[in-house]
Amino acid sequence: MGMIGGGIDSFIGDVHRKASSIDGMIELVCGAFSSSEEKSKRSGKALFLPDHRCYGTFEEMILKEKELPEGERMDFIAIVTPNYMHFAPAKLALENGFHVVCDKPMTLTVKEGEILEDIVNNTELLFALTHNYPGHPMVKQARAMVANNELGKIRKVQVQYLQGWLATSIEKTGQKQAAWRVDPTKSGVGGALGDIGTHAENLVEYITGSKLKEIAADLGRFGEGRVLDDDGNILLRLENGAKGTMSFSQIATGEENNLAIKVYGEKGSLEWCQENPNQLITRWLDKPKMIYTPNGNNLHQEALVASRIPAGHPEGYLEAFANVYKNFAIHLNAKLINNDIEIPDYPTVSDGIRGVKFIHAAVESDKNNSAWTRIN
Amino acid sequence: MGMIGGGIDSFIGDVHRKASSIDGMIELVCGAFSSSEEKSKRSGKALFLPDHRCYGTFEEMILKEKELPEGERMDFIAIVTPNYMHFAPAKLALENGFHVVCDKPMTLTVKEGEILEDIVNNTELLFALTHNYPGHPMVKQARAMVANNELGKIRKVQVQYLQGWLATSIEKTGQKQAAWRVDPTKSGVGGALGDIGTHAENLVEYITGSKLKEIAADLGRFGEGRVLDDDGNILLRLENGAKGTMSFSQIATGEENNLAIKVYGEKGSLEWCQENPNQLITRWLDKPKMIYTPNGNNLHQEALVASRIPAGHPEGYLEAFANVYKNFAIHLNAKLINNDIEIPDYPTVSDGIRGVKFIHAAVESDKNNSAWTRIN
Amino acid sequence: MGMIGGGIDSFIGDVHRKASSIDGMIELVCGAFSSSEEKSKRSGKALFLPDHRCYGTFEEMILKEKELPEGERMDFIAIVTPNYMHFAPAKLALENGFHVVCDKPMTLTVKEGEILEDIVNNTELLFALTHNYPGHPMVKQARAMVANNELGKIRKVQVQYLQGWLATSIEKTGQKQAAWRVDPTKSGVGGALGDIGTHAENLVEYITGSKLKEIAADLGRFGEGRVLDDDGNILLRLENGAKGTMSFSQIATGEENNLAIKVYGEKGSLEWCQENPNQLITRWLDKPKMIYTPNGNNLHQEALVASRIPAGHPEGYLEAFANVYKNFAIHLNAKLINNDIEIPDYPTVSDGIRGVKFIHAAVESDKNNSAWTRIN
Amino acid sequence: MGMIGGGIDSFIGDVHRKASSIDGMIELVCGAFSSSEEKSKRSGKALFLPDHRCYGTFEEMILKEKELPEGERMDFIAIVTPNYMHFAPAKLALENGFHVVCDKPMTLTVKEGEILEDIVNNTELLFALTHNYPGHPMVKQARAMVANNELGKIRKVQVQYLQGWLATSIEKTGQKQAAWRVDPTKSGVGGALGDIGTHAENLVEYITGSKLKEIAADLGRFGEGRVLDDDGNILLRLENGAKGTMSFSQIATGEENNLAIKVYGEKGSLEWCQENPNQLITRWLDKPKMIYTPNGNNLHQEALVASRIPAGHPEGYLEAFANVYKNFAIHLNAKLINNDIEIPDYPTVSDGIRGVKFIHAAVESDKNNSAWTRIN
Repeated sequence: MGMIGGGIDSFIGDVHRKASSIDGMIELVCGAFSSSEEKSKRSGKALFLPDHRCYGTFEEMILKEKELPEGERMDFIAIVTPNYMHFAPAKLALENGFHVVCDKPMTLTVKEGEILEDIVNNTELLFALTHNYPGHPMVKQARAMVANNELGKIRKVQVQYLQGWLATSIEKTGQKQAAWRVDPTKSGVGGALGDIGTHAENLVEYITGSKLKEIAADLGRFGEGRVLDDDGNILLRLENGAKGTMSFSQIATGEENNLAIKVYGEKGSLEWCQENPNQLITRWLDKPKMIYTPNGNNLHQEALVASRIPAGHPEGYLEAFANVYKNFAIHLNAKLINNDIEIPDYPTVSDGIRGVKFIHAAVESDKNNSAWTRIN
Repeated sequence: MGMIGGGIDSFIGDVHRKASSIDGMIELVCGAFSSSEEKSKRSGKALFLPDHRCYGTFEEMILKEKELPEGERMDFIAIVTPNYMHFAPAKLALENGFHVVCDKPMTLTVKEGEILEDIVNNTELLFALTHNYPGHPMVKQARAMVANNELGKIRKVQVQYLQGWLATSIEKTGQKQAAWRVDPTKSGVGGALGDIGTHAENLVEYITGSKLKEIAADLGRFGEGRVLDDDGNILLRLENGAKGTMSFSQIATGEENNLAIKVYGEKGSLEWCQENPNQLITRWLDKPKMIYTPNGNNLHQEALVASRIPAGHPEGYLEAFANVYKNFAIHLNAKLINNDIEIPDYPTVSDGIRGVKFIHAAVESDKNNSAWTRIN
Repeated sequence: MGMIGGGIDSFIGDVHRKASSIDGMIELVCGAFSSSEEKSKRSGKALFLPDHRCYGTFEEMILKEKELPEGERMDFIAIVTPNYMHFAPAKLALENGFHVVCDKPMTLTVKEGEILEDIVNNTELLFALTHNYPGHPMVKQARAMVANNELGKIRKVQVQYLQGWLATSIEKTGQKQAAWRVDPTKSGVGGALGDIGTHAENLVEYITGSKLKEIAADLGRFGEGRVLDDDGNILLRLENGAKGTMSFSQIATGEENNLAIKVYGEKGSLEWCQENPNQLITRWLDKPKMIYTPNGNNLHQEALVASRIPAGHPEGYLEAFANVYKNFAIHLNAKLINNDIEIPDYPTVSDGIRGVKFIHAAVESDKNNSAWTRIN
Repeated sequence: MGMIGGGIDSFIGDVHRKASSIDGMIELVCGAFSSSEEKSKRSGKALFLPDHRCYGTFEEMILKEKELPEGERMDFIAIVTPNYMHFAPAKLALENGFHVVCDKPMTLTVKEGEILEDIVNNTELLFALTHNYPGHPMVKQARAMVANNELGKIRKVQVQYLQGWLATSIEKTGQKQAAWRVDPTKSGVGGALGDIGTHAENLVEYITGSKLKEIAADLGRFGEGRVLDDDGNILLRLENGAKGTMSFSQIATGEENNLAIKVYGEKGSLEWCQENPNQLITRWLDKPKMIYTPNGNNLHQEALVASRIPAGHPEGYLEAFANVYKNFAIHLNAKLINNDIEIPDYPTVSDGIRGVKFIHAAVESDKNNSAWTRIN
């Protein structure tokens, strides 16, 4: 693995490194950790990388690694930069035969997304998008229960993703994580919408197995002087006929990382909360509420294989994130050794394009005073 | 108290009787418990009422009671019938000088509501609407904290009221509670909207102290053959500038009575859930999450007086319902003995008119494909 | 009902009055509310009782009521005084043919308890002890599940009753509830042991259907100058072979009324907490955790009849307390009209004698440095 | 790091490997993964280790590694074998100058423990015991709050560690994890006592900063034919004057890994549960309940440095386990480069000896019908 971005003091770079290493299947071998070559090399040194594999630009990394002998050069790149720096390295890597793991949202525009999709579809290259929440065992259990028709036809969905860290104007205090997220040149047309709304969108589509058909969005810009949304409320209509709501916010004072979803079917319903990820609450027409746990009783196979340790030993954010990398690595290994095994799922370029379309549809709906807007 | 409706086997009639009696301030003295005189008398007998004060119609009750000597006749009526039977007895009672306690939604039409409002405003008569949820001590604490500016300016509201009891078509099985609720001639233009959506609307306005300005509603009719909504998702804009979502449903399989609200301000936020009513969760910019309890530490006076027993001894639905009756009784007593004391709050005819307008605005918005619609 | 104790400002007197009235089966007709005749009459007046039925002593009440014509005189007395004032009025009432409802612990000594037991056993008189916690629907569900062998043979029990209101020496500040509880002449040999430990003991025996065989107790007296225990930890051995722990405290700072029990059998286990009484958590060898709720799915009949309102509408302390009165009233009515119906359970004089023996065994064990001590 | 035990299919070996690698400070370089050399080599191969550093015995590993040049040879060993195989490799490693990380309980006998303690005390060698639960940020917050006297003098402790996986006799079905745990030649004199009771003991002493002075234990052997305890209830007296209870079990049907502790002081109290590790509940004399979270508001430095990711992103068992390794690695690094930095805490040989003494005291007390028995 070669990393683009993720220099010293990066939050998400460190997450990607830990998540990719937990299962002992992926090794970081090089990086272009910063647009400053000096900082890139300093970051790499702290990670015990040799100096010559710490590059000053992603172009340099991709082109130089390509010239290394097979077995020595990186197999894939992990892009952990702000949104505006996803497309160019992803495209260049794919064009030079490297597989790609990319942070979300995939690109700033739908067009860019389609370009990546085209390349991936026309090559044998793998593309993983790090929506980490589908990596949780209980989210996989939820998806399997819906797919298995245990809840019956789905009628209603509620999803929320609430944070409070932008409740005050910390972008004006030099907080770098905040600064780029409120800057449309770096974030794109969506603020909280792209940063966390896409996680909510992805989770709905992952669990229900149905796509959002149209949405009616009312975005908020509560922080003084912000041009991008920091809050949003959206009505949902799914292709399967279900209706629902999405609410996301980065100004929900006191909330930490409150992603939660409820899905209601004709026979049963389920509820999952990211802050307490080791339980899946289910409710039924004619049975008591039942709570599933990782490696606990009566799970689907998809949930079991996503758990690492015995029931009752909590797994968290990193472990779920690691499952995305692990499943990508299983796929990559299978491809490298031409093995025909069943590949566990992970988010791909298709999920990426959905997210970008969702962002643009929400922005358009909001401009039209929340008119219903199709995602396609 | 004289009761209209609430015969044997009525759910809500029994609730009203228990709730009104807990505090020993109100006595049931007569009733028109059923449109069948025989059933009315049978119901009254089971309640130890004398036969001659069990009437066959509300008209009979109001007119005959009026002729009884003061001190003997009922002081007020409690209307616990289906929606379509609220207006007529309320109007007749008011016109004959009786105070009124009325179930929600107050009337079928805005016009009817305004007629009642006019009468109340032009007399000294009291009118209580039994939105019971504002009766909870922790809801009163929530309202007091917002009013006291502890949360700062309110930016975001999420409210939901989820039930699952209409997930199947039980109205076709002879279930009477279901049958009238799905019948527009008895329920009015709103189904779940009027039955539970109005509780959600009232709770938002009660806690935030601000009114809903406009809404964008997407109503669902999931039960086979239903003409009234049994599910709804609504975008909210409040007069104070806050935005939010409301979701209500009676087809949310497995949910029991899941009314819950979250309110986010610039400095803090709060969360309250009806199914676990004895805690108020608050979150803060710069303090840990803090949880208030009835008769617990650091409460506002409004919350303290609404608690009956020491902290840790749970109070529930009946106790909150009883607080509406209790505060109404305190007001009535003060009026009867011309006492100038501070009257604790209870929902009134103004809340009633808000609810009816909310129902009609939501229905109109839904007809216009969720166009933003003003409530006024 | 005639009440002994429970004058103005009494906590538990008010609870008894509300609890006995909720279901409309019991009417308060007289009282000896205070040892001061003036205060007794003042208390009665506030309760709308006629002056002549507000007595200055319990002796006066019992003897005068006895002379009233049947149908007019009270049917039973409710004793809501501090512990030391239970025995005498109970004995006198029974001797004069009145049924008795008595607060716990029943008497100060085992001998006194046995005297009451003898009278009750040798008459047709009813005796209810107001252990209110068995009144909860979910406690009744728990008992029914154990009785029905759904959990298999019981192996382990954990029970706790934690309060913090005596964490500081409030008895020195004039707080009357605290003052008598720390005074051995009024409380007996047990402090927290009698006040709340007996509730824990009763709950264990009620749910498991087995008796405590022997206990090893370590009592604490943490409050400065206290001679009675304000904290205790006890090892339990049950007659059915199960083992367990009990922990109770009134110096558990910050706890409100945290009574909780867990019972583990060979096939399943259950957990119930008083502060969140509307759920019964069950865990299983081979099924997910399942949570039962009042009036919810799959309940035993015993739990259903103890619920008043639909699932999801929380019932609390008062409603459970009322169930003790209600079941006592059902029994009393059946007896009065010689009706042969099934009587729902309520705690009786046998539970009372168990509690008193438990207190004395714990005190003895504690004196013997926690030696195992039989309860019999 | 060289590993003793932890071959293919080992649960805890895999945990140690993941936990030691997350922070990128420790590298597995060799192992004696199994008493079968073939299996050891096979296990090592799956871990990408060179064949010549996969040894057939721990003796071979220690002696051969010692001959490798500094910088190449392992710095320390990690012992992840069943209890009876801790002492010998630990002793040999220490005697040959290797630092040690050892699983708990440290040794079978107190004497063995003292031998290790002596060696460690007389050398510069480091010894870490993998009690992982003190690695949780919220446990460190709890300890810091007690140390900082925020709770006041500690009066009461409740600790439990409940599992249900031995509720049936799975040791007879070939389940290897169960088989050695119920075998006194492999487990020592304690069954569940040593396996999980020691974690409870360690957690009490870690958080309160006080030692258990004496205990009164009642052990259960519920599984058919078991000679070691599979359940236990213990009264606690601490050196600081506090009293308490401990309950542990591996036959608590349906429980997964329910380690939980409550500590009550004169001014406040705290509660932490392993299954929901990302919150620390605190209760107060005069403030609402307050809940701390990792990287959340108002934490002590000890808790902050133990968190890896932003608040609201749950960390779990592996991350806490990793903190033990991380802090050990920080200490080791500081020692290797002679750096004088502040070393964050981790359990050491002293904790190990406490655990072994606790096991033996509990067994002795149990033999003496739960007589109070000193731990020293």
